[in-house]
This record gives sequence, C-alpha cells and structure tokens, in this order.
Amino acid sequence: MRTLTVELGDRSYPIWVGAGALSQVADRGLIPDNAVIVTDSRVAAQVLDRFLAVTSLHEPRLFTFPTGEQHKTLDTVADLLTCLLEFRLSRDDHLIALGGGVVGDVTGFAAACYMRGINFVQIPTTLLAQVDSSVGGKTGVNHPLGKNMIGAFHQPIAVACDFDLLDTLSEREYLSGIAEIIKYGLIRDVDFFVWLEANMGALRERDRGALEFAVARSCEIKAAIVAEDERESGVRAHLNLGHTFAHALETAGDYFRWLHGEAVAIGMVLAAELSAANGDLDSATVQRISSLIDAAGLPCLPPDDLDPDTLWTLMSLDKKVQAGKRRFITLERIGRARVMEVTSKRMITNLFETARDRAPAHT
Amino acid sequence: MRTLTVELGDRSYPIWVGAGALSQVADRGLIPDNAVIVTDSRVAAQVLDRFLAVTSLHEPRLFTFPTGEQHKTLDTVADLLTCLLEFRLSRDDHLIALGGGVVGDVTGFAAACYMRGINFVQIPTTLLAQVDSSVGGKTGVNHPLGKNMIGAFHQPIAVACDFDLLDTLSEREYLSGIAEIIKYGLIRDVDFFVWLEANMGALRERDRGALEFAVARSCEIKAAIVAEDERESGVRAHLNLGHTFAHALETAGDYFRWLHGEAVAIGMVLAAELSAANGDLDSATVQRISSLIDAAGLPCLPPDDLDPDTLWTLMSLDKKVQAGKRRFITLERIGRARVMEVTSKRMITNLFETARDRAPAHT
Repeated sequence: MRTLTVELGDRSYPIWVGAGALSQVADRGLIPDNAVIVTDSRVAAQVLDRFLAVTSLHEPRLFTFPTGEQHKTLDTVADLLTCLLEFRLSRDDHLIALGGGVVGDVTGFAAACYMRGINFVQIPTTLLAQVDSSVGGKTGVNHPLGKNMIGAFHQPIAVACDFDLLDTLSEREYLSGIAEIIKYGLIRDVDFFVWLEANMGALRERDRGALEFAVARSCEIKAAIVAEDERESGVRAHLNLGHTFAHALETAGDYFRWLHGEAVAIGMVLAAELSAANGDLDSATVQRISSLIDAAGLPCLPPDDLDPDTLWTLMSLDKKVQAGKRRFITLERIGRARVMEVTSKRMITNLFETARDRAPAHT
Repeated sequence: MRTLTVELGDRSYPIWVGAGALSQVADRGLIPDNAVIVTDSRVAAQVLDRFLAVTSLHEPRLFTFPTGEQHKTLDTVADLLTCLLEFRLSRDDHLIALGGGVVGDVTGFAAACYMRGINFVQIPTTLLAQVDSSVGGKTGVNHPLGKNMIGAFHQPIAVACDFDLLDTLSEREYLSGIAEIIKYGLIRDVDFFVWLEANMGALRERDRGALEFAVARSCEIKAAIVAEDERESGVRAHLNLGHTFAHALETAGDYFRWLHGEAVAIGMVLAAELSAANGDLDSATVQRISSLIDAAGLPCLPPDDLDPDTLWTLMSLDKKVQAGKRRFITLERIGRARVMEVTSKRMITNLFETARDRAPAHT
C-alpha cells in the first residue's frame, strides 16, 4: 500500500492506494457508526458486504440510489439531504461515499450543502473514480442543459483506493478507468506514458503490482495539480484533456451511450488531432496516442452517426466556454499540455474527418 | 455615504452604506448588461423601476419568484439554476441579488452552485438584509425539517445598502430589521446599545442620519466578526444571539407567523432571561433589554399558545446542536456575548414562565 497526500494547508488529506487501504480508513476511526454511507444499487449488491466486513459496521446508516449517470441529479441530492435530516446528522458527523464517480459527486455535493458543509470520505469502487473524481474536491450533478453544471468545490478528508473493491467491476467499466490513467501520462509525464505502453497488458489483466503503480502515479499527478490550482484558475484545466469533447459526446448520448472514460478516450484522440492541426504534434505521435488508447481496449473514433455541428453546439454550453471561444486542452508534446482557444467551428468539425481517415492504421 | 470593507484577503469586498450606494455599484461596472437580476414579486412591483433607473439597464435579464420565506427552497434554487443555463450565463458572468434576505440567500446559494461558483452582488432592499444577511457569505435555503439546513458559505463581491430602496418597506418589515441592529449592541458594543436607547425614536421614524449610523455600525461589527471567523468555528456564533430560539419559533409557525426579526426579538429576550438564570445578568439589565426591544415596536414575549416542550424538540434540529447539547448564545453583560451549553430541558422551558412574569413591567 502507498500513502500520498493532497497538500492544501489545513485542508490537506491522505490518499491510501492498494491492498489494505479500506482497513486503514476504518482503523483511523474515519468510518464511525453514525456516519451515513452513500452508495448505489450496483455497489450495494456487489461490494457492500465486503465493505461492512472490513469496517465492522453493525447497523450502518445507508442511503442507496439507483446506479447510473442519469441519477446524478439535483433530485437525488435533495433526497439524500432529506435522509440526512431524518437521520438527524449533525455538523460534526460525516458522509462516506462508497461507489464510483456518480456516488462520489452526489455525496460530495450533499456534504458541501448540508448545514453549509460537513466532512466526507471517498471510498471509490471503480478504477475511474480511484484515479480521477475521488481526488480533488470537484463535486456536482448534471442538468438536462449540461453536465456537471451544478456543484461545489469541497475536498474530502480522506480517500481510500482499495483494489479489493474493484473485483466485481465489469471489463468495460474497468477499461473506462484506464482512459484517465493514460491522460496523466499525456498531460504531465512522458515516462509514465512509456511505462503504460510497456505494461498495458498487465494493467488490463488487473495485475496488482501494475495497478498499484498506475493508480498511485495517477493520484500523485492529480494531487500535485490540485495542490497547485485547487479552483481551476490555471493549470488544473489541463486535467480536462479530451473532456470538452467528452462532455459534448455524453450530452449527445443522453449520458447513456458512453461510459465517461470511453467518451474521454475519443475526446483525447480528437484533442491529439487538434494538437496536430495546430502544428504541435506530428502524425506519428497522434498515431502513437491512438495506438495506446486502442491497446487499452478503448474506442478511438467518434461514432459515425454523430453530426460534428451538433457537437460544436453542445460544446458552447461547456463551463470552459468564455465569450464565445471554446477552450480546449491540447498537447505540445506527450507529457506537456496547453490551453488553446478555438473560435473556428470548421477547425473542430474537420477533426472528425482527419480522425476517421487515420483510423485504419490503428483499428 | 460610508464605505466599509469585509477583510478576507483576496476575497475582501466593499459595503457601501447610505444615499448613492446603488449608483456606486453601477458606476463601478458591477451591474453589467449580461448580469442576471434575481428578485421577488414584491420587490419587482415596488423597487425594480427605481433600480433600473439608477443602473440604466435597458433589457435586464430577470428571474423573479414569489415573495416570502416559504419560497426559500431548493425548488426555487433549481428553477433559478435552470434559468441561468437558459440564459447561457458563463462562469465569468454574475448574479445580482435585489431583495431581502430570502432573495439574497437564494441568489447566493445559486451563485455558489452554478458551475461550482460564480460571483454575485448583494443589493439588499430590506433593513434586515442590509444589517445582517447581505454581509458575511452565509447562503442557503430551508427544508421542511429545518431552517437554513441546505446552503454554502459564498461571499458576495460587493454590497450596496441604499436607503432609497427601503421607501416602500412596511412598518412591520422595517422594525424587524431593528431587532438585528439591537443585537449588535448586545453582543459587541455597549456604547452602540446606549446610542440606540437614545435614538430609537429617530430610527423608527427612518431619520436618514440615524439610519446611516445604525446600519454602518451594524455592518462594521458584522464585517469584523466575519473577518475573524468566516466559517463560524468560534466568535461568529455570537451573531446567533436569540437565533436558536428564533429558528424554533419560525419552524413552529411554519415560517408564516413571524417575520425573522420578530422571532429574533423574542429570542433575544429569552436569551437575556437565560443569561439571568445563569447568574450573568441581573434582573434590571434583562428589563433594560426588554424595554429597548419594546421601544423598537418589537414583540418581547413568546406567544401564549406555544408549548415550551415543542420548542425544545424543534431546537434539537438546529445546526448548533452538538451531541445532544443545545448551544445558546447568552450575555455576560450588555456588549459581551458567550456560548452556553444547555442539557437541561427544564432550564429552557422555565424561561417562558420567567419572561411572562416579568412582562407587565415592560408592555
């Protein structure tokens, strides 16, 4: 097990990664009897027993909601808040988010709003949540008019990334997490990218050693970026590589069609193409990026039935839009990201064609 | 006009008090054309024209909801958030809260949650909001199970307390604001309390000079306390003098029966009685406090039909309850507050009797 820290002064918190992470949290008294455990129906059915066994909770106070991004809504948060009031949770009690990104986002936002802010602990049960959403304090819910439009910055007091909780994860869910792992190499660490090229097989086979290294390195990079720029006024935006495209893809698919990591995978390929169109990446490097994403079993191409114009329109609602300009994260090279402002719709819609033309080489 | 500052580092902000405060805000570009003005039906009918004339807004983007504490709900915030998305408000745009405490709380909470936080400006149109809720960044909404249970700390970027906006305020609404003004003298400034005893007549007659002094002094005290303890981990709790009682009274009255300041007035008398029961205040001082509240035209006694047991139960849901103990703010003397923890229900229910026995002397 590895221990990392997100350095945020008096709001600093630990991330435990690997076997025994959950015991660690329980042993430190961070899962007291009166904490409310928030989870979803999949996790309740597949992971909860193991969680309760490790934590020795007898009569857990539970709030469970149906699995899926379509339940990441203000209505779910409102139901959770009512439940907390019914439990008479006090300002000094706290919440446990036991689940994937949706559970973490809903729990964190409820914790941010309940009595103007109470503590919460992240116990991510998906690979995606372990390497991304559980760290950094972004919480929030979707709105029919846009993804993650309602939320708050609210840091957890601890994060436990325990691999035992990933055992029941489907192949597709697991691979979705690898997309965000690849992202860290792309934006910040070429050595990690090279390591991923060499170890993708072991990672896909859920080798514990490979997993521990990949998750810890991802969390380490994210923690460093969050410590530098908690509220995303600068470098934190680099974490959004592929995400402006991904959010639009997800909105176009009504949040049902794509897992988040799959949309991010496609978005990262489009971002690489944009970097090439901008003269920063050469064709071989775009290919190399596509190849790693393909080797991870992730999609590299936007679907044929998606109209580029629709995507452009959907992107205008993204939080990162300022004064009509769409902001994209692109790559100067593998391991170094930058912000690029695009006003030309044509520049974006062209990417679809370029990406499809390049496709045969890596599919 | 006076200018004060709430000192919070890079989140410091000005409060302008008096004639011309609104022009001040407009002249500084803080009310741009694309800002969304949030207001309620009373303010829209009585104050909006004046506001638009001073600010020279031509086609204001407006969100109006029905007047009243019963609309300070998560549903109203959800409607406002949808409206902001329909206006395609960006992260760099901001909101204007034009109204009383309810409008300020709803607007501030929506600003806290929209895209994880955007700016907002407070233009309070009630005396109560000018001296209390518009300053300090407490935002939030009520829940059927408790008042202000859902919310966030989110500071405005500017506050304008312009007395021209108070002209249409009813007598009862106006007096409700004086309750909070008296509170500042009680918790922090005996000289101000003495000034209020001497100038209550002028203040009730809305004399501009008296008003400017009283509002500025109140905001000054609040700003100093907020600067010292933004998140209420210590001294900020003193601002809750009378409020644990008041919130229970408001909940018992379903938020309809009492104006907030009226409930606070009764709560302050009960807090004074509690201070006396605790041996801190003598009987003459309790009388002196009741007399000033009475002179302000505010109620001094809990209603006859209110059962003290019900009040005690309602108080157990208050945010200030910790581990079964009810926390009350009491007075060591006029001008100095303290926190007192009460576990004895009898100690609280007795206060009703004491207050009623004392009543003939000051009503």
